[in-house]
Amino acid sequence: MSVIRNILNSRSSKGGNFFIAMQKILGFKPKNITHYEKAFTHRSLNQKDKLGNAVNFERLEFLGDAMLSAVIAGYLFKTVPGGNEGYLTKMRSKIVSRKHLNELGKDLNLISFVQTNIPKDQFGVNIHGNLFEALVGAIYWDRGYKYCKRFIYERVINPYVDIEQLEGKVISYKSLLIEWCQKKKKSFNFEVYEDTGNDEVKHFAVKLRIDDRVVAKARATSKKKAEEKASKRAYYALQTHIENE
Amino acid sequence: MSVIRNILNSRSSKGGNFFIAMQKILGFKPKNITHYEKAFTHRSLNQKDKLGNAVNFERLEFLGDAMLSAVIAGYLFKTVPGGNEGYLTKMRSKIVSRKHLNELGKDLNLISFVQTNIPKDQFGVNIHGNLFEALVGAIYWDRGYKYCKRFIYERVINPYVDIEQLEGKVISYKSLLIEWCQKKKKSFNFEVYEDTGNDEVKHFAVKLRIDDRVVAKARATSKKKAEEKASKRAYYALQTHIENE
Repeated sequence: MSVIRNILNSRSSKGGNFFIAMQKILGFKPKNITHYEKAFTHRSLNQKDKLGNAVNFERLEFLGDAMLSAVIAGYLFKTVPGGNEGYLTKMRSKIVSRKHLNELGKDLNLISFVQTNIPKDQFGVNIHGNLFEALVGAIYWDRGYKYCKRFIYERVINPYVDIEQLEGKVISYKSLLIEWCQKKKKSFNFEVYEDTGNDEVKHFAVKLRIDDRVVAKARATSKKKAEEKASKRAYYALQTHIENE
Repeated sequence: MSVIRNILNSRSSKGGNFFIAMQKILGFKPKNITHYEKAFTHRSLNQKDKLGNAVNFERLEFLGDAMLSAVIAGYLFKTVPGGNEGYLTKMRSKIVSRKHLNELGKDLNLISFVQTNIPKDQFGVNIHGNLFEALVGAIYWDRGYKYCKRFIYERVINPYVDIEQLEGKVISYKSLLIEWCQKKKKSFNFEVYEDTGNDEVKHFAVKLRIDDRVVAKARATSKKKAEEKASKRAYYALQTHIENE
């Protein structure tokens, strides 16, 4: 226990690695870094506070989940004035789906910060989303709703939420493009390579070739996203061709 | 339609009845009174905005529900440091239960503000809770999270949320007291009378007599609550007797 405490203490001081890593992810300086430590404390450590209450990230998940729901509700209410209650509810559950939260947590590599007594490869796939929720909870606890909202806009809404795509009007640009290439007997190829550069988070770049000509490039935090982004760009570049034929 | 518009216009101006009534309920001046009008516009009016989007309180219910969940989550997270995720979730659903929201809406007599084309007695019982949620949504829309949170503390948490009672440790002080009176062969009597005074909302006062002696008085927005409040006071006053026997 005291060893773990010491590790946390050294890594969490203002110049410590954990503090700096959090600041990069959050986009602001944490006020109370211990709130964020809790967001990465697994129950297997059996940590307790002075009063004997269990300390781990599960309570913060509850808080973060509520804040995500509220911020996304506010966003949808404003952005889709024509959507009724049922529509807004459905759109929200797509945005905060387990699958999407897991992607968000994975992209930020949150699992690298977890303090645990069990091997990390024994966590289920939902650990990524759970940590993302806990992080959002810690932000609310540390800095209140305004910062929490800003973080959710920066990390969830702005980069990933595309109402048209959520509505299922466009399921995947990649599949649209592949379909068109096959129909037109054109060859296509996605060349993906790691391109992290100075970023905190791993990045991938992709070149999309059609008939050996590069038609689009893109860069994102996962292979899948980079491919989708490149496909979307190619789709709009080729739109006249694709729609007329 | 234009008749309804005119009624709304006259009642919603800064000196209008609706504006004043809202201000009393909210505890602050509305910035944009039309947001609150929407919180009381029933779908039966078939109102549309300039773009043809339906205008009624259902979208605001969605928003208000999310804000209630978030504020109550934040409250429970802080207040019950020993509660795990499951406990916090359970407590929240008790606080924002349909039954409780209906009571809150009823106490504020929100139904009196509804603009509708169908008779109000044809609304189901949940109209009260739905209007309460819509009102919370309108507050968020008009003034943001801070005011929303303050309103929920003033109208929901401070007056009604008693963690011990929610946990089922004490189900009802009234039943505890009655049980004790019966066991001790004491007579008891609740004298209830309306006592609204200058309040916006109807109030009830109650005198609780045991063996013809007034042991507690209370005042609240419903008969049931006034009786419960008086019983709680009597219970604490008589506690030594009750617990020793």
